[in-house]
Amino acid sequence: RRLQLLTWPDIEEYLQSSRSILIPIGSTEQHGPTGLLGTDALCPEVLSRGIAARTGALIAPTLSIGMAQHHLGFPGSISLRPSTLIAVVRDVVTSLASQGFERFFFVNGHGGNIATLQAAFSEIHADVSYGMQSNRPSLQFQLHSWWMMPSVRARSAELFGEAEGSHVTCSEVSLTHFAHGPHMKSRPLSPKIAPKGPIGDSRDFRSRFPDGRIGSDPTLANAEAGETLYEAALEDLCAAWEEFAKTA
Amino acid sequence: RRLQLLTWPDIEEYLQSSRSILIPIGSTEQHGPTGLLGTDALCPEVLSRGIAARTGALIAPTLSIGMAQHHLGFPGSISLRPSTLIAVVRDVVTSLASQGFERFFFVNGHGGNIATLQAAFSEIHADVSYGMQSNRPSLQFQLHSWWMMPSVRARSAELFGEAEGSHVTCSEVSLTHFAHGPHMKSRPLSPKIAPKGPIGDSRDFRSRFPDGRIGSDPTLANAEAGETLYEAALEDLCAAWEEFAKTA
Amino acid sequence: RRLQLLTWPDIEEYLQSSRSILIPIGSTEQHGPTGLLGTDALCPEVLSRGIAARTGALIAPTLSIGMAQHHLGFPGSISLRPSTLIAVVRDVVTSLASQGFERFFFVNGHGGNIATLQAAFSEIHADVSYGMQSNRPSLQFQLHSWWMMPSVRARSAELFGEAEGSHVTCSEVSLTHFAHGPHMKSRPLSPKIAPKGPIGDSRDFRSRFPDGRIGSDPTLANAEAGETLYEAALEDLCAAWEEFAKTA
Amino acid sequence: RRLQLLTWPDIEEYLQSSRSILIPIGSTEQHGPTGLLGTDALCPEVLSRGIAARTGALIAPTLSIGMAQHHLGFPGSISLRPSTLIAVVRDVVTSLASQGFERFFFVNGHGGNIATLQAAFSEIHADVSYGMQSNRPSLQFQLHSWWMMPSVRARSAELFGEAEGSHVTCSEVSLTHFAHGPHMKSRPLSPKIAPKGPIGDSRDFRSRFPDGRIGSDPTLANAEAGETLYEAALEDLCAAWEEFAKTA
Amino acid sequence: RRLQLLTWPDIEEYLQSSRSILIPIGSTEQHGPTGLLGTDALCPEVLSRGIAARTGALIAPTLSIGMAQHHLGFPGSISLRPSTLIAVVRDVVTSLASQGFERFFFVNGHGGNIATLQAAFSEIHADVSYGMQSNRPSLQFQLHSWWMMPSVRARSAELFGEAEGSHVTCSEVSLTHFAHGPHMKSRPLSPKIAPKGPIGDSRDFRSRFPDGRIGSDPTLANAEAGETLYEAALEDLCAAWEEFAKTA
Amino acid sequence: RRLQLLTWPDIEEYLQSSRSILIPIGSTEQHGPTGLLGTDALCPEVLSRGIAARTGALIAPTLSIGMAQHHLGFPGSISLRPSTLIAVVRDVVTSLASQGFERFFFVNGHGGNIATLQAAFSEIHADVSYGMQSNRPSLQFQLHSWWMMPSVRARSAELFGEAEGSHVTCSEVSLTHFAHGPHMKSRPLSPKIAPKGPIGDSRDFRSRFPDGRIGSDPTLANAEAGETLYEAALEDLCAAWEEFAKTA
Ligand code: NI
Ligand code: NI
Ligand code: NI
Ligand code: NI
Ligand code: NI
Ligand code: NI
Repeated sequence: RRLQLLTWPDIEEYLQSSRSILIPIGSTEQHGPTGLLGTDALCPEVLSRGIAARTGALIAPTLSIGMAQHHLGFPGSISLRPSTLIAVVRDVVTSLASQGFERFFFVNGHGGNIATLQAAFSEIHADVSYGMQSNRPSLQFQLHSWWMMPSVRARSAELFGEAEGSHVTCSEVSLTHFAHGPHMKSRPLSPKIAPKGPIGDSRDFRSRFPDGRIGSDPTLANAEAGETLYEAALEDLCAAWEEFAKTA
Repeated sequence: RRLQLLTWPDIEEYLQSSRSILIPIGSTEQHGPTGLLGTDALCPEVLSRGIAARTGALIAPTLSIGMAQHHLGFPGSISLRPSTLIAVVRDVVTSLASQGFERFFFVNGHGGNIATLQAAFSEIHADVSYGMQSNRPSLQFQLHSWWMMPSVRARSAELFGEAEGSHVTCSEVSLTHFAHGPHMKSRPLSPKIAPKGPIGDSRDFRSRFPDGRIGSDPTLANAEAGETLYEAALEDLCAAWEEFAKTA
Repeated sequence: RRLQLLTWPDIEEYLQSSRSILIPIGSTEQHGPTGLLGTDALCPEVLSRGIAARTGALIAPTLSIGMAQHHLGFPGSISLRPSTLIAVVRDVVTSLASQGFERFFFVNGHGGNIATLQAAFSEIHADVSYGMQSNRPSLQFQLHSWWMMPSVRARSAELFGEAEGSHVTCSEVSLTHFAHGPHMKSRPLSPKIAPKGPIGDSRDFRSRFPDGRIGSDPTLANAEAGETLYEAALEDLCAAWEEFAKTA
Repeated sequence: RRLQLLTWPDIEEYLQSSRSILIPIGSTEQHGPTGLLGTDALCPEVLSRGIAARTGALIAPTLSIGMAQHHLGFPGSISLRPSTLIAVVRDVVTSLASQGFERFFFVNGHGGNIATLQAAFSEIHADVSYGMQSNRPSLQFQLHSWWMMPSVRARSAELFGEAEGSHVTCSEVSLTHFAHGPHMKSRPLSPKIAPKGPIGDSRDFRSRFPDGRIGSDPTLANAEAGETLYEAALEDLCAAWEEFAKTA
Repeated sequence: RRLQLLTWPDIEEYLQSSRSILIPIGSTEQHGPTGLLGTDALCPEVLSRGIAARTGALIAPTLSIGMAQHHLGFPGSISLRPSTLIAVVRDVVTSLASQGFERFFFVNGHGGNIATLQAAFSEIHADVSYGMQSNRPSLQFQLHSWWMMPSVRARSAELFGEAEGSHVTCSEVSLTHFAHGPHMKSRPLSPKIAPKGPIGDSRDFRSRFPDGRIGSDPTLANAEAGETLYEAALEDLCAAWEEFAKTA
Repeated sequence: RRLQLLTWPDIEEYLQSSRSILIPIGSTEQHGPTGLLGTDALCPEVLSRGIAARTGALIAPTLSIGMAQHHLGFPGSISLRPSTLIAVVRDVVTSLASQGFERFFFVNGHGGNIATLQAAFSEIHADVSYGMQSNRPSLQFQLHSWWMMPSVRARSAELFGEAEGSHVTCSEVSLTHFAHGPHMKSRPLSPKIAPKGPIGDSRDFRSRFPDGRIGSDPTLANAEAGETLYEAALEDLCAAWEEFAKTA
């Protein structure tokens, strides 16, 4: 159930039986010479629609732009500052909480969002904790980064081993092959496996990782692997949602 | 050309010949008992893809959540505060400006965004005007609200006259029928034409406009009218984009 | 009735019969080689005093500095950022609302303020809409830009036609001649009618509009026309105030 | 020389020989049952015009609303939060600094502004100190609260002794008698000399100081004393301005 | 009683009989060639522990970093912007107020903190004054800068006369000799008595005060004087605390 | 080398050979009926002094108050909001970066700080990444939470097994026994091992974890174990510092 394709009386009715909502969140950032700039938003979006189809979860519109300041050295990357993303999440959650939602299940597509999202949850909780909004029910948050779900990690280790890497991973590129296949590019990549290292600002990032990849060889990615990973992710995410959403 | 489905080398190449980008922006908010919560984001998104198809414009991911505080009394509405939306637009524009983009063409689907977007453009310009970012080129913005394009207003006046209204308009509902037909709901609406009045906070709004509509009778909306309006909007928007983007 | 020249028991008494207040807001910015830097604040101030004299409206101190970042390239211009002006309006309104005011009637002298003021009203409404200040009554705002009142537009079209322009207009310069005559300067202007164009940052503005004027020939301005426009503006503004303020 | 009544070429010329500007700042807040709500803005305004007349100082528009949160329990009081006033002062100063002003002389009418103004100066300096605006010249600020000038304190001690008080002082009421005489009210005050005590929030303030006065008996105020104090203040302020402004 | 060395049940018990807490606040900034960078935090810390020992006051952790933007030109200086320090004080106070503390006694070691702390208190009060937190009790603040206590000023005038100065004072250096003697450095200072002047940004500061001192000759400082000043400060501060804390 | 006990010429000299600094960061929050409120600040402080003693690292003053909103339901807990802590870290780092520091090594004592600190690092990097501070060298950050160092985890697993828990852990209580022994309290704890669960706002936290502990039995803690853990932590932290600081 996509919130965007429903009406307000539909949501009013949904709230009779559930206080939970699923929010896909991603990023728009370089994914190397061949990965799509939208990879990190497209993946949680396709997975969220899968969860909704299987469980009846209500899904909010995808937050397509995340915290990706380190990628800004590569054209097409778009980032919110952490402080801006905190404000966005706060307003989105507070909007829904004012209508009765109490449980927020984020399906995340981008590692760079994790810390800021957790900070945002604390910023929201603080309104109650400091006594500013003592009438508001206590809100509950869960954050699931799809590529870290146990079933996904298991499959991806089998499929790609060390070549998986940590940015422009074989897994995420495979999932976009599966979901958005016709758009995938092929270009020569050199070195075959990209370098690794710490992440700093965008200038530092581009000098350490000249084509944008970190530790990966995404030429191994393919649509079939993407489907396998899609199923693995859905299995774990649907279970997590159902556990989360069953609490009144 | 959807930025999300391209790679960074594609954008690097695009920047060789253009400094312009199109950004669809909408809202997620109640559209009465039968209109989709996503109406205001889905309309600029479908139009932007049309513009891209016809002109080769590069389109950024749709900003699906806008400034809709007055709708929060109806479940499913999600809003950013004006100050948050200003920060989002500032970060998005500054991200792209750091890579060489200088001209930003917003295709807007929601009247409530207009004032805040114009304030955001001034907030961005201020960095240059106060001498904080004097090395940055002067950025140019245009904001086009699709339903206000002359060809759209002409068609919509012919098609719906007074019943068009100003929220949950026949035009926007028709465009969603055309673009997302299977999702449309049918429910009895009463009164046939909704009341009019000023817009305040969400409590005031819900008391003045009990089912969410303002001045409209969206039962007149239909997919055929939607297609007519789609073509009218594209005609004007493509012309505006081409005029805007031809300036180096 | 100027609030600055009254006492708190006077205001306490006023609140027995009215919840409405008039707030003049302007700007301090270049008005070409001959127009006063204070034009946009002086005009709403003189008009507001006229309204008060005729209707008994309570008028707050004039907010003399507005959002004028695009004029900063000309010495003497002073601007608030949009985000600062939002904070100012929010604090002013919240101060008065804490004492029982509920209806705020802004008389505006500067086009550049409009978007930011509307954003500010939404920012204030949001405190109620998100459930942060649910005990506060719903506040009502009206924004009247004096040069856009129908009677003023009619007179100014008759008096100046195309030469009116859109910045350093014949109308506003005439009104300052009428109200602050002795201070007006005379200097040669070239070209006679100033260029037109879009508004960006202050560097862009000064390069497009070298002497500060946009589309106008203020040599046509005169005190007699100023008096005509003053009366036209008062007629419409007094009517608007009385309609607004009669609502309890 | 009032900036509002000058043109941008006038200011351009002024900057040839001076980098200094005088900014009057006040407050809009209760001044007891008989003092004007505008007292703290009207006093620095009339004094600043006097300084300008005698020294040729350039004076910015009066900032009429200051930091007066503690007075909000009395109707008609209007306050900015400290954080808002810091932003206002920062924008005003940065506007003028971008045009070549380097020396800012504040004439202040309200004790509650002092701490926040000093914090604002540090906030502005910090842009240079943290290396954010290393190209900007070092700005200089002076803050003169008119009632604390030595000549004023001497006269006011002679005239009123203990009855001067610390809010709604005999001195400030006298100065408004002198400058805005016809507007002054007469009402019985009880007790004759108001209580003293610490200042907290507006609820605490109103309970400690039931009619708004602190420690004063403003029935002693009169226009003649006002003129004496006006001359005393001008003497010291003109000397301070000339010393400040002579530094290139 | 140091809060850091207690448990939450200890504080719960303390709150049965007292609503007051002592908060030491300092700064980390250059103190000339021989004074410790921590001087302004170490002094209020040692004094606060003394107060606690003699009166049973509860002391919060020392806020060791204050507002010292003007010192940033000297390595090792660390500053918060005024706006950041306001936020810190607001969060610290609001944390404790949510648990029942109502009276906050700041022992301050740095002149540069004073204005910002007073602004912070007003920022906190404003939540009540604007009607945002009307359920919260009115909070009370006192700010005591140890070197300004009457007994300290008397002793320091006797001990050092003019050589006391206003930064890197003989008094504060003596107090650190007494409390942290082994860490004190000896280096030649020239000129013997440092220059005086106004304080601006860090670049201006370093050019006016080349070794960091203002108006002082800290070679006169010594541990014996430090002990005298310690006792003088404690005498006044303990009396002030007891007066403050006895109010329920 | 404690920065607080050094002078600015000492730091100037240090910067000749190193661009690295160690910043201890903790929290002030309940640690159950027997653990010290200062535990999370005292532990990184004592460890940092140990690192400094063994490696010559320069250590900044301990940031004693962190992000602990969830603990506010227990008296004595003090928290910064995430947005405030981001501002603090930004100002501290920017202060030091303006003087030539480029490498920042945080030794952390509180799990609740981790996400916000990582967000803060990105907020700082963003100034370079968006082109706002392109002259600044790229800064490097490392964040080490002492209890997560491999040697500590190994020892703590041997010593306490499951009873370690995740708040008021046996390890941190042991370390405070070792470092601040005389202050430790003994009170009966029930149940012996505290419950586990997710962390939300302070109201939710106190209802899930009635005495403040999560999953731990701190009655097993002791000074001898504390010393073992201290040595384990120092071993790993000194190695990490030396690796980090050797990079020019
Ligand atoms: Ni990715
Ligand atoms: Ni719509
Ligand atoms: Ni104008
Ligand atoms: Ni006053
Ligand atoms: Ni000091
Ligand atoms: Ni802990």
